Formats: sequence, C-alpha cells, structure tokens
Amino acid sequence: MRNFICDLCTSTLEVKYTDSDYIGAQPPGWSGPRMPTPIHDIDSYVSLGEGNTPLIPLPRLGDFLGLNHLSAKLEFLNPTGSYKDRGTATMISVAHELGVKEIIEDSSGNAGASVSAYSARAGIKAHVFAPQNAPKAKISQIIVYGAEPHLIPGPRESTTTAALDYVRRKNMIYASHNLSPYFIEGTKSFAYEVFMQMKHRMPDHIVMPVGNGSLYLGAWKGFMELKEKGHLEKIPKLHCIQAQAVMPIVAEFNGLDWVPGNDVTVAGGISSTDPPHKKAIINVLRQSTGAAMSVQESAIIFHQKKLADLEGIYAEPTSAAAFAGLSELVKSGCIGPEDHVLLPVTGFGLKDSPPI
Amino acid sequence: MRNFICDLCTSTLEVKYTDSDYIGAQPPGWSGPRMPTPIHDIDSYVSLGEGNTPLIPLPRLGDFLGLNHLSAKLEFLNPTGSYKDRGTATMISVAHELGVKEIIEDSSGNAGASVSAYSARAGIKAHVFAPQNAPKAKISQIIVYGAEPHLIPGPRESTTTAALDYVRRKNMIYASHNLSPYFIEGTKSFAYEVFMQMKHRMPDHIVMPVGNGSLYLGAWKGFMELKEKGHLEKIPKLHCIQAQAVMPIVAEFNGLDWVPGNDVTVAGGISSTDPPHKKAIINVLRQSTGAAMSVQESAIIFHQKKLADLEGIYAEPTSAAAFAGLSELVKSGCIGPEDHVLLPVTGFGLKDSPPI
Repeated sequence: MRNFICDLCTSTLEVKYTDSDYIGAQPPGWSGPRMPTPIHDIDSYVSLGEGNTPLIPLPRLGDFLGLNHLSAKLEFLNPTGSYKDRGTATMISVAHELGVKEIIEDSSGNAGASVSAYSARAGIKAHVFAPQNAPKAKISQIIVYGAEPHLIPGPRESTTTAALDYVRRKNMIYASHNLSPYFIEGTKSFAYEVFMQMKHRMPDHIVMPVGNGSLYLGAWKGFMELKEKGHLEKIPKLHCIQAQAVMPIVAEFNGLDWVPGNDVTVAGGISSTDPPHKKAIINVLRQSTGAAMSVQESAIIFHQKKLADLEGIYAEPTSAAAFAGLSELVKSGCIGPEDHVLLPVTGFGLKDSPPI
Repeated sequence: MRNFICDLCTSTLEVKYTDSDYIGAQPPGWSGPRMPTPIHDIDSYVSLGEGNTPLIPLPRLGDFLGLNHLSAKLEFLNPTGSYKDRGTATMISVAHELGVKEIIEDSSGNAGASVSAYSARAGIKAHVFAPQNAPKAKISQIIVYGAEPHLIPGPRESTTTAALDYVRRKNMIYASHNLSPYFIEGTKSFAYEVFMQMKHRMPDHIVMPVGNGSLYLGAWKGFMELKEKGHLEKIPKLHCIQAQAVMPIVAEFNGLDWVPGNDVTVAGGISSTDPPHKKAIINVLRQSTGAAMSVQESAIIFHQKKLADLEGIYAEPTSAAAFAGLSELVKSGCIGPEDHVLLPVTGFGLKDSPPI
C-alpha cells in the first residue's frame, strides 16, 4: 500500500468521501461550489496560488481550424508553469497535514518541478527521480527549488523502478503524482473552474493531452461531482490525445496493435508507455463518449508554432499535441464548426526546447 | 513625437484624462473599482488573460528576514511570464484600435517577448530589437511568437538607437514599452489588484526592482487614482531597488557618484543606465517617502535561491534583486518586523539562466 497500489488486486486507488456532507478545506481564494477535499485543516493547505487560470477565446486559431467557438484555459500559468500544481498542492497538503518530512517522487519533469516547489514551501525534503534525458530547463527547475535530483538512465520506467527501490530501502513516503489518489483530488479543481467560467455556455468538447491522465481523470471527477450535486446537467465529451510514438491508451481504446518500441516523442509530458490508470481512463472515455486519437510529431510542432503565431500563446509540445489532435477531430467530423470547444494549455513552452 | 518624446522639451509623455467621469474599456474579467484606460471599445482589447495574479504570504522567508507580514504578488504568472504583459496589453490594444499593422519595439528580453505575443494575438507584425547578449530563452520566446528579431551588438543603448533608426527609415510606429505612455496605463492595474486583494490591511511598504520603472510608475499612478476617487487613504511607501552595477536612480536620489561603466548585472531586466523616466521615478520616490537602494550581485543570486528554497518560488534574478534590497531595508531599520510588506515577483526564473 505504501506505493499506492492495492496489495490484493494491484489496482490504483481512488479517494471516496463516504459522508455526502463532507467538504474539507477549500483551496485558498476559491468561491465556487464547495468541493470535497482530503485536507481537513485550512492551516495545513500548502498553496502557491495555483488555479484560477485564465480562460480566453482563440478566434484566430479557431478560424484556421474551422471552429467558431474555440477557447483555451491557460494551465501553464500555474506557479511552476504547469497544471500539475493543482494536484501537487493537494497531495503535498495531505503529506504536510500528516507530518511527513521527506518524500520521494518520480517524474519526467513538470511534476518533479511542481513537487519540488510545494515541498520547499512546506519545509519537506524532496527526492525527485527523473529520466536522465529530461529537458535541461525542467531538471534545473527541480534543483533550484532545493530538491535532490536522482537522474536515471534508460526508459521512463527505469525511473519509477529506481524510485520504488529507494522508497523500500529508505522506508520513505512515495509521493507519486501518477499513483497518489490525492493528486487527482487536486486536479479536479480544473472542472470546477471551467464550470464557474463557462456556466453560461458549457463546452461541448474538451480535448486533452493524456499521458498518465491526471488532468483527464481529475476533470472527469470534478464534473461528476458537480453533476451529482445538481450544478451541472451534461458533462462535456472528454477527448484523449496521445503521440503516435507512445499511444497505449489510443491503441487499447480503438483496438489497434501497438507495443512500446524505441520511438520517442517531443511531447515528453505524455510519453508514458504503461500508464497505471489506463483502465480508469478508458472507462471515462466510454462514459463521456470521447474519442482517443494519436498525432504525428510534425503535427505537434506545427500546432505549437501555430498557437504562438496566431494567438501569442507559448505552449510546450505536450500541450500542442492536443491542438494537433483537435485538428484531426475536426477533419474527421467528430467536432463540428459550431461546437463549443475548450483545450487546456497544460505547460509553458519555456520549460522545453523551442520549436525553432 | 513619433518616438514618444516631447519635441519641445524632450520630456517623456503621460496620459491625462481630462474628463473626470471618463473610464474607457475595462480589462476583461475586472470587477474592482473602475480604472480609466486609453482603450475606447472593449472589442479592441487585446487580452491574453493578463493580471489577476496570485498574492500569497511568505511566512518562511519572512522568518528568515525577520518580518512577520511578508507577501508576494506573483507577477511572473502573466501570459508571457512577466508583469510586462499588463503594460503590453494596453499599449497593443491602443495600436490595434488605431488600426496599426506593424510595430517596432526594443527590449532586453521580457518586454520583447510580451510585445511579440500580444502583437501575434492582434495580428500585428512586430520587429523586436534586442541586445545580442540577452538570455537565449528570452530571444527564443520572441521568435516563437513570430516576431522578427533584430539582435544588436554593444551596450543596451545601441539597441534603442538601432530601433529608432529603423523607425525613421521605415516610417513605422515605435511601440516602446519604455516610452509609450500607454504602457504605464496598463501596469497601473497592479495597484488596483493590490487594493482589491489587501484592502483589509494594505501593505506599509512595496519593494520593487526598478530599471525603466514601468511597474513602479504604473503602481504609483494606480494608487493615486484610487486615492483621488476616495477608495484609499494612504499609499504604501514605494521603494526602488537597483543593482550596484547599474544604479542611475539610486545614485541620483541619494546624491552618490556613479557613472555607467563596463559593469554588468545578472538582473538584466533592470540594467538600464539612462532610464528615460528617471525624473518621474525620483519624483515618486520623494512623494511616497520610499528609499532607493542598490544591491550586490552575490546578494541577488543568494536571494533568488532563498526564495526558491524556502517558498518554492522561482524568480528571475531581476525579481530577486528586490528581495536582496528588502534584506538591506530591514537591516537599516527602514522596514520594521511588524510592518506589512509586499514584493512583486516580476519575472519567471525559467526565462533566464538558473542560479545553479
């Protein structure tokens, strides 16, 4: 259980609130519908002002893609430059409330930086395991926040193996953004904010880059809570975009042949060959009647540049993958010209190599 | 007048609203006291969701510095990663409203990226003149947004000279963040937000890094407007911090000998040897009874790392200079342990070389 996997059935875990009146500490500054959180005392909340990100229309990119109602939520304007801060704030707050003083995380970059920052803020010592080939800006960021980096050669999975080994040897807390059920309790605030910002006209579609699916699953959970409490009638379709080089979810959902190979993708944030929440993600795809689609490397770079050129938004390649996927969903007729469409811009382009 | 300098007396210009009831288009999403803006039609507003940045307490850094009420406003969580977006949004909106299609800007980096992004969003072609030795991440960012970079060797002043020369030769619009009076009309939203976020207890002191002073002067103007309209009784003291290597304002205000030399500072954003608004800044220093102080390079780097280590905030060196200055202001007794103190974190550390 220390590694957030069920000892009996090896499933990932999920937070359930058994008391339907339970709420918990609300994110500082939040004034929308109360959301259940696993934090009991507001004084335990470790916040850097995450969330409340801008939601803006994209008229010029919409024109280019043949859409009349395209918007983006600028998740890269979270305190460490990615949406991960939503999940990290909750996960580290729980650890802080429990008196944890030292944690271990493994990450391809964004989550590592995020966990490092929130640990610093909480006075928790963080060990961050990351692939040796992660972008330099992301590794520097981890070190700047005072975390101890452990750079691991080999594929992404070796990083997790090394982290788990360290957890066992040192008998420490594994604060994995991929596995901790508290992480998704944090990312669900994305859905609550979309509801507050767009309740006059909710989007028909939300298109997301999906690696381990922490934003995807968090958004779904948030929308479900809003629906159960009677705030929301209909949940937007949640579409899942992956890179063709690494597409375990797209393959499984669509019944395609795909095995992890040596292919790499510029979209480092979604380069996860065996996401632990794969079953849960596919379940949400079915329930939300979303599509799962993969995109080529050239399309990712093309849309990263297009988003900057036409709208002045500098996204990292991972975020641009969703725009490349959107283009395919429009071409295939899955999304029509009058549909209302929202995309999160999950990470800042400054954190990766520029597309030039 | 094309270069925003008075033809007769060579002073910089300032926007005056002669009708005291005039308001203008408000920033999208703004719900605080109405602020006069030079934008007439809300449809002309070129916005990327700038402003509404988090304001958070810094208890651990406060302890370290001997302050019980220290807070930061995270200005690096603006759309291009610096506070400049406030000024740029207004300046580019005015240009857009006037039908301008091509502009010239000169910048050491942050303003160049900001003007490039907002120009892209407005469909305006931007030429950005920048020093050849500006940080690579900042130059990449300018190029990503589709602006045309003009990299100029030599000191910072050569960049301005080259830009002005290009303006004359091409007969184009000079959208200089240093000189356009519209820029400060945008940065004044900083003061309005501080008022909304802290009106229960306004800060006694605001400590800022000052190069050309666009945030410093904008904040003052915003607070003055709030005072004139009766929202605010007392304006915080506005302190000005510069690097010892480049300290024209500190020197003039304190009557010190200083001439521009070959010294350089890591705080690139405040490396301005001859700021055009120098007189106006010194005037505000006197009116607000603020102090002007310079800091050493080692202190800038030290406080950049301290802010990350203790609070999980990754500031660029320019922003860290204000924290180094704060430390001096506390040591000198100018700021006492029970005073309420606010600092803007003006730019994201990701935009510069890491302090490691």
